[in-house]
Amino acid sequence: MTELPVADDVLAAAARIAGHASVTPVLQSRALDAMAGCSISFKAEHLQRGGAFKFRGACNAVWSLSGAVATRGVVTHSSGNHGAALALAARSRGIPCHVVVPDGAVAAKLANIQRHGATLWRCDATQAAREAMCAQVQESTGATLVHPYADARVIAGQGTATLELVGQAGTPDVMVVPVGGGGLASGTALALATVAPACRLVLAEPAGAADTARSLAAGERRVDFVPDTVCDGLRGALGAPNFALLRACGAEVVVVDDEATVAAMRLAWQVLKQMIEPSSAIALAAVLARPALFSGQRVGVVLSGGNVDLEALPWLG
Amino acid sequence: MTELPVADDVLAAAARIAGHASVTPVLQSRALDAMAGCSISFKAEHLQRGGAFKFRGACNAVWSLSGAVATRGVVTHSSGNHGAALALAARSRGIPCHVVVPDGAVAAKLANIQRHGATLWRCDATQAAREAMCAQVQESTGATLVHPYADARVIAGQGTATLELVGQAGTPDVMVVPVGGGGLASGTALALATVAPACRLVLAEPAGAADTARSLAAGERRVDFVPDTVCDGLRGALGAPNFALLRACGAEVVVVDDEATVAAMRLAWQVLKQMIEPSSAIALAAVLARPALFSGQRVGVVLSGGNVDLEALPWLG
Repeated sequence: MTELPVADDVLAAAARIAGHASVTPVLQSRALDAMAGCSISFKAEHLQRGGAFKFRGACNAVWSLSGAVATRGVVTHSSGNHGAALALAARSRGIPCHVVVPDGAVAAKLANIQRHGATLWRCDATQAAREAMCAQVQESTGATLVHPYADARVIAGQGTATLELVGQAGTPDVMVVPVGGGGLASGTALALATVAPACRLVLAEPAGAADTARSLAAGERRVDFVPDTVCDGLRGALGAPNFALLRACGAEVVVVDDEATVAAMRLAWQVLKQMIEPSSAIALAAVLARPALFSGQRVGVVLSGGNVDLEALPWLG
Repeated sequence: MTELPVADDVLAAAARIAGHASVTPVLQSRALDAMAGCSISFKAEHLQRGGAFKFRGACNAVWSLSGAVATRGVVTHSSGNHGAALALAARSRGIPCHVVVPDGAVAAKLANIQRHGATLWRCDATQAAREAMCAQVQESTGATLVHPYADARVIAGQGTATLELVGQAGTPDVMVVPVGGGGLASGTALALATVAPACRLVLAEPAGAADTARSLAAGERRVDFVPDTVCDGLRGALGAPNFALLRACGAEVVVVDDEATVAAMRLAWQVLKQMIEPSSAIALAAVLARPALFSGQRVGVVLSGGNVDLEALPWLG
C-alpha cells in the first residue's frame, strides 16, 4: 500500500504548486443560500487550470519528482480530468506525459488531454485493462505512474483547495466534497486536520457508485461494484490510502441519486451561472437533499470540475 | 430628450450603488487568450445581482429619487434583465415596482422578475404597446418611469462596471461591450472618458438588429427595423441620448451574426465555464471575429448577463 500522506504534506504541496496552480475564486449566491438555508462558499475549482481541482494533485506529484526521474516522464490512467491535469502539469515541467484512457470517456475531456500535449493510449473500460496498459507504458518508457487518487502526492495536492478556501473565506462549520476514488475527499480531510480541526467533513457520493458509504459503514473497503451514474468523474473505486484516511477522520457520506444531481447542476448553471459537471454538482445536491445537516451553518463546497460534454445534453431533459 | 449624463455622474453612481451592487470578479483564461491572440479581462457582470449589469443602472436610478417620489414606486418596460434589476433595486429601497413585459419574453427572465417581488403587466411585443401600458401604470400609481437605457441615471449606473474593471485589472487598450438600446455602451463611453481616455470603445451588435452601426454611419438615428436575433437583450432600438453619447466618443461597431454569437457562447460555457447568454457572448464573438482590431492588446470585455433559458436549448445544436 502507498505510504499515507500526513497533514503537513498539504502545506508542503501548497508551497510546491504556488505559481503553477491558479488561486481560484470563492463564489457566493444569496439566492442559493436562501434555498439551502445555510451560507455556502463555493471554491471554484472548475476554474482551475485544466478545468478541475485535479491539477493541484498532478502538479504536486510532477514537481515532487527528482530531475533524473522526471525526465523519463509520467503516466496515468484516467477517465478524464486527472489525465488533462497531469498533461498540463508535465508540460509545466517540460517532461513527457502518457495517459491511458478507457473507451467511453467523455469527449470534451479527451480533447483537453490532447490539447495539453499528452500521448493518449486507449484501452477497454475495465480497471484491469487500464492497469495492464499503464504497466506496459511504464515498462517501455520508464515513466513514473501517478495514480489519479491513491497516490500520497496527489492526495496532499488535492487538499490545497480547502487550505486556500479557509484562507479566502474563513473556517467553515462543514466542508462538502464529492467522493469517487477519494483523492479530493482524503486530501480535504488532511487539510482540515491542519487548519480547521473542528470542521466536519461530508462526502457526496452517487447512489450508483456508493462504495465509500458501504466501505465506511462496514469498516473495510467494499469496492466490488459496477458503477451506474452520470457522474463520470466519480465512477472509480475508493482507493486503499483514501479509505484509511477517511475512516480515521470520521467523514460522513450523503448518497445522492442522479436525478437530484442533475437538478442541482441545472440550478448551478442558472443561479450560480457556473458551468459545472455532474460530478461537481453532486456536492450542492447533497446540501439541498439533507437540510438538517447544514441548517444555519457556514458550508464550504468544492466545485470540483467543469468539463461538461455539451453533446451529451439529452439527459438534461 | 433626456438630459445627457456626464462623466462625473458615473463616479457619483459608483458611490451611490456601493453596498447594494456586488463587486463582480474579473476572469481570465489562458486558453481563450491563446485563441484570440490578445489578453482578455472579462468583467463578470452575469454574477451581478439579478444576473446582469442592469442592476447597476436600476439601483442608481432608484436611489437617486427623493423620498416622496420614491414611495410611489417605479415602473419600466423591459424584455427581461432590466425588469429583474429594477425589481431588486426597488426592493433594496422598500418601494413598489411595476414591470411591463412583452409577450414572448424569456421565461427564465420573467421568473427572475417575479421572484424579486415586482408586479408584472403583460402587453404585445411592440414598442408602442409597451409604452402605452407603461403610461397607463404611471398614471394609475404615480410611479416614476425608469427607462431601460435612455435614462441618464441608468446610463451613468451602467458605466460603473467599467470603472470597477479598470480598478481591478488595470487600464485596457480597448473595451468591448454589447450594444442594444445603448445603456451599457454609452455608460461605458462615459466611464472611459473619466478614467481611461486613451482606451478605444468597440461595440458588438447583432446583424439582425444593427441599428447602432447604421445610425453611427449615417450620423443620425436609424431605428426603423424589425429585430431578428437570438440576442434577446439587444433587440431594442438605440436610444436618443445613447446615440448622442456614442457619436461623440467615436465608438466603433462590429456587427456579428447569430451563428458566431452562439459559437462564442458555447466556447464561454466550455472554456470559461461561465453560463452567459447570447446577448453577452456577442462581445467575445466580436473579438474572435476581428483579430486585427485586438491583436496583442489588453482587451476588457463586459460579460453582461447570464440569464439563459435552458428550455430554449434546441438552437444550440
